[in-house]
Amino acid sequence: MCTTCGCGGHEATIDGATAFRHADPHAVAIGAVHAHAAKHAHGASDERIVAVERDLLAKNDAIAALNRRTLEQRGVFALNLVSSPGSGKTTLLVRTIEAWGARSPVAVIEGDQQTSFDADRIRATGAPAVQVNTGKGCHLDAAMVSRALAQLDLAPRSLLFVENVGNLVCPAAFDLGEAHKVVILSVTEGEDKPLKYPDMFRAADLMVLNKVDLAPYVSFDRARAIEMARRVRPGLEVIELSATTGAGMDAWLAWLDAGLRRASSQLPAAVVATAQAG
Amino acid sequence: MCTTCGCGGHEATIDGATAFRHADPHAVAIGAVHAHAAKHAHGASDERIVAVERDLLAKNDAIAALNRRTLEQRGVFALNLVSSPGSGKTTLLVRTIEAWGARSPVAVIEGDQQTSFDADRIRATGAPAVQVNTGKGCHLDAAMVSRALAQLDLAPRSLLFVENVGNLVCPAAFDLGEAHKVVILSVTEGEDKPLKYPDMFRAADLMVLNKVDLAPYVSFDRARAIEMARRVRPGLEVIELSATTGAGMDAWLAWLDAGLRRASSQLPAAVVATAQAG
Repeated sequence: MCTTCGCGGHEATIDGATAFRHADPHAVAIGAVHAHAAKHAHGASDERIVAVERDLLAKNDAIAALNRRTLEQRGVFALNLVSSPGSGKTTLLVRTIEAWGARSPVAVIEGDQQTSFDADRIRATGAPAVQVNTGKGCHLDAAMVSRALAQLDLAPRSLLFVENVGNLVCPAAFDLGEAHKVVILSVTEGEDKPLKYPDMFRAADLMVLNKVDLAPYVSFDRARAIEMARRVRPGLEVIELSATTGAGMDAWLAWLDAGLRRASSQLPAAVVATAQAG
Repeated sequence: MCTTCGCGGHEATIDGATAFRHADPHAVAIGAVHAHAAKHAHGASDERIVAVERDLLAKNDAIAALNRRTLEQRGVFALNLVSSPGSGKTTLLVRTIEAWGARSPVAVIEGDQQTSFDADRIRATGAPAVQVNTGKGCHLDAAMVSRALAQLDLAPRSLLFVENVGNLVCPAAFDLGEAHKVVILSVTEGEDKPLKYPDMFRAADLMVLNKVDLAPYVSFDRARAIEMARRVRPGLEVIELSATTGAGMDAWLAWLDAGLRRASSQLPAAVVATAQAG
């Protein structure tokens, strides 16, 4: 969530001591504004901020539920890929699409503040891609995905990847209608990230540990990274791979294949037949 | 800025076509809400969102101005270090403090969503550090820095590093009262980041290109990265280094030294004498 003061149901602390606390522990707040009007002057009242943010998230969740129903009705397996900038999401997608071949249709929604670099890279594989540029925005939201879906017109039994804006904080709070959030962590980023950015790892169902080919050149304890991730998200699935060298890609492709089978298992036979003929 | 739909003075686009546009091009918006009430239902009115965000930023800027005056009056050279998670900010700080030695006092304000790992690493060098945990928050704000400054009680002619939350988007909009934002880009992240996240690079006065020791193992065009950064921020200074191997650290230390001299050049002689005696 795009809270600034960290008051969103949690407390902002300085050296472990509570610096800012909300009157309502379930309330959320945004911006350089804290709940204790006594401590510094407030221009925006807490109530107003809380109301705005609650409205925003409720609207997002409603649109996300519509997206999810649309995707499920077509047997689409949709993944929301989240990570720091530069973790290798786009390279992973390019290599995945190449390896996936004709198993099923694949499409991609690309999110970035600016540029269409990533969508261009995806389209070079032959897969359809829609680029969403968020401008000042720090994450995709369900409305953006809804509009992108309208452009993609996905075939039944498709694999859909949504590559979120590179950001380990804000995308965690926004449901897009995906089946799973997949968090990508590259070995060059350090093994402590799951504890430092716990919301994102808690929201994910799979962690892809990427760039394992660079492990010999950096100080990165893979076992410790996985232990830390499972401390915030018990049972988190983990796949270690290198999109660059191809190591570990088989496990990832098998995971995708199993997910797509589950997603399409409820489809009426007629829809599956249409998809297979298409 | 923590905008979600990207309407904040810019437009969110899908494949280059305007998807969402604000009635007021200078207005800012937050959350999964777009300016065109006609296109989907709004719970929070644009006017209310714009008013909240304007208030938040105005409050932040007022506190940042106070921070800046406090720092300048003490001849403190204060830097706001911004980057993706895992770019190597903390390692750079540890190595910088070790190499800086007794040239002047050094202090650090550490920002993370959770954990005190980074402050612990800084304190192990002997330098004072204050850990700010933002909870749900995606960046530091001026009020957090103000409170941390009260705890640090900086000596005149200090070097102050503020290590922001790892996030290439949201910290760009929030002035903390620093002399400069310094953006750290590691070679493992890819050279296209300045164009994808232009606000951050535009806000910075120096780019530190870190982890150059890993350049032989990754596909990273350093000249292209610098060209892209200067396309969004003409005249951006660049220092290439490896905090791990020490390569390039001399240029960074010289840059810090020059900045500290400028910051302390306006101090009354009595204050400087006190600092030198301390």
